[in-house]
Amino acid sequence: MKKGLIVQKFGGSSVANVERIKNVAKRVAGYKKSGYDLVVVVSALGDTTDELIELAHKVILEPPEREMDMLLSTGEQISVSLLAMAIYKLGFEAVSFTGAQGGIITDTSHTKARIIEINTDKIKKELRKGRIVIVAGFQGATLNQDITTLGRGGSDLTAVALAKELRADECQIYTDVDGIYTADPRIEPKAKKIDFITYDEMLEMASLGAQVMQARSIEVAKKFNVPIHVRSSFSRLCGTMILKEVKRMEEVVVSGVTLNKNEAKITVCNVPDRPGVAARIFKDLSGSGINVDMIVQNVSHLRQTDISFTVSKADVLRAIKLTRSVAKSIGAGEVLEDQDIVRVSVVGVGMKSHHGVAAAMFGVLAKNKTNIEMISTSDISISCIIQRKFAESAVRALHEKFKLAK
Amino acid sequence: MKKGLIVQKFGGSSVANVERIKNVAKRVAGYKKSGYDLVVVVSALGDTTDELIELAHKVILEPPEREMDMLLSTGEQISVSLLAMAIYKLGFEAVSFTGAQGGIITDTSHTKARIIEINTDKIKKELRKGRIVIVAGFQGATLNQDITTLGRGGSDLTAVALAKELRADECQIYTDVDGIYTADPRIEPKAKKIDFITYDEMLEMASLGAQVMQARSIEVAKKFNVPIHVRSSFSRLCGTMILKEVKRMEEVVVSGVTLNKNEAKITVCNVPDRPGVAARIFKDLSGSGINVDMIVQNVSHLRQTDISFTVSKADVLRAIKLTRSVAKSIGAGEVLEDQDIVRVSVVGVGMKSHHGVAAAMFGVLAKNKTNIEMISTSDISISCIIQRKFAESAVRALHEKFKLAK
Repeated sequence: MKKGLIVQKFGGSSVANVERIKNVAKRVAGYKKSGYDLVVVVSALGDTTDELIELAHKVILEPPEREMDMLLSTGEQISVSLLAMAIYKLGFEAVSFTGAQGGIITDTSHTKARIIEINTDKIKKELRKGRIVIVAGFQGATLNQDITTLGRGGSDLTAVALAKELRADECQIYTDVDGIYTADPRIEPKAKKIDFITYDEMLEMASLGAQVMQARSIEVAKKFNVPIHVRSSFSRLCGTMILKEVKRMEEVVVSGVTLNKNEAKITVCNVPDRPGVAARIFKDLSGSGINVDMIVQNVSHLRQTDISFTVSKADVLRAIKLTRSVAKSIGAGEVLEDQDIVRVSVVGVGMKSHHGVAAAMFGVLAKNKTNIEMISTSDISISCIIQRKFAESAVRALHEKFKLAK
Repeated sequence: MKKGLIVQKFGGSSVANVERIKNVAKRVAGYKKSGYDLVVVVSALGDTTDELIELAHKVILEPPEREMDMLLSTGEQISVSLLAMAIYKLGFEAVSFTGAQGGIITDTSHTKARIIEINTDKIKKELRKGRIVIVAGFQGATLNQDITTLGRGGSDLTAVALAKELRADECQIYTDVDGIYTADPRIEPKAKKIDFITYDEMLEMASLGAQVMQARSIEVAKKFNVPIHVRSSFSRLCGTMILKEVKRMEEVVVSGVTLNKNEAKITVCNVPDRPGVAARIFKDLSGSGINVDMIVQNVSHLRQTDISFTVSKADVLRAIKLTRSVAKSIGAGEVLEDQDIVRVSVVGVGMKSHHGVAAAMFGVLAKNKTNIEMISTSDISISCIIQRKFAESAVRALHEKFKLAK
């Protein structure tokens, strides 16, 4: 019985060794047996990508990006061929493709390429033959057939883009957790798995530190309305469905609490309060490829103000150096850094139509004796920068307050 | 100053680790600096290919060959990208290609594909830009863009075929020995490096156990008259030039002595002496892909004869099984095996016009108290199967007799 097409994506931890690859093969074969057509996207085995990066760095600290892509793309090529073999062993026909063979055409921005087109002819041809098609995640090729990679988490993007292009009924993202949780269960043991979540909520969750799925791929899923099912490769349980709209039995204001420990705060003191001065600081940072996240500027007094902002910890050294040089040239004062901060956020589409979430959040943090250093809000989230030592207790207190364990 | 084009091939031991890759890069860059255009063919790092085969066998004992090629081809893709990085670090521009990107088009015989065409447009374009082009050895792609491999030693073939197609001035084969020797220096310390050797002699040497270069690639070099220079990647010395004709100062009858320990002897006793019986035995063996090397049949008496032949040790179990079943069906007697034999050969184009080499060889072996079990001759070689215990002393005695240490 023909049941439709499913795109499945298995991350590195799901294929970390031969035993796990065989497990993945069993799961894929099970779906095939029950009547589905299958396109399977696979990441590199376990830590292969990191090992290859390390190998390259033994040769040269800043490898040419084209060659880096040539090197890294071997990781997924190994996993797709091994998975095809494992499926073949179970008596099913499978064929593996590199990104290039799978028709994934990208621009020429090596190491962070964007998909510009997918030519699914070859994939469709193999599906028509009844074969399970396995495509290397994270990679593609330029029109000139140079191999490219899509950046960290790029396998999610491969899966979502293929699901869109092939009009798949579902895109299943297999990972090492059961789904999306109301909070990190390692911090809040009462955290519950969320059965349904909207693209927008998931986007906030992803960009705010829930590292289950790459943010870019959720954007693409949202744009083309691709139904996503995030679930564990180690259990048969249903995970979290990510959809456009979620009809909930009762009104839920807040869907989850997230924590991001990867940011650092930079403060420029005594900035002259003249038009264009803030622009100057952030122009230089963005020109160097540094993403600035939250920005807070205090009300000015005495024609001087303090400007604080957060950047990823990975960029903090470069950011401080740049900011110090700008601060000097604009006549500002000291530049301070604080790596001991975290961002705690509450996320939920219910907030749109609900006032008082911010007040409730601040109240909880105050009760928890937690000083709020910066605040940022969106339609469906509120984030606070707080000292790291309060991180876990803040998550638990917010989880409790918004009744997420109900 | 423009000096012409050299194709260089570096084997797995030449790129076994990052330090060696850096050494290869220095050598390549040196040639570039002195004015040559360069196309560099690289094998997989050290034992990578064997490790990948082992990995596949953990998944399935007989992997589908298409997927095996997909897997194995990653080995060279890793080495070409790392070598490009290492060259880049020395301040030269390099670009790496997979076999497919390098335009190597093969038939669809996965794991032992044959090159049917090379489209050198991309390589030439990069050479015109002044770049060093690095091509993954051992691999190509079908017209349908499926990845193929060329079989063991296939990187030599890639190099020779590219040298032919690009009309290179020389094809340099870098290996872990200084060149071709008059005998294995581990057996005969007086063995001398041969400066010049003909394709025909080298073909005999290669197929007779001197494992420096793949036989198929020498055939191609001979067919298209590609000058080959076999040399060490660890020294700057000149190695052995393989050419069509070699003008030698004085007449050399024998160029070298080779030893092959990889054969086993099978004897079918009491074979009925009827037409077609021998054909039956060897048809079944060749049908199973088993190469039979030497064949000896004794003069028949009493309407029965013994037939002996040699096969590669890797095939011996299968060959015996097959032969036993044929022997039964044709009414022959016992099938005996002997794995304790070696083949010792003398090779040299001078033999063509020189009688008495065979007699001299047999004389030496007799003096050495070595029984000759089988004999086979060609235009430029004579081979004897002898017991393994005499192998080394036979090589040394023949080396001495034909004055190869002169």
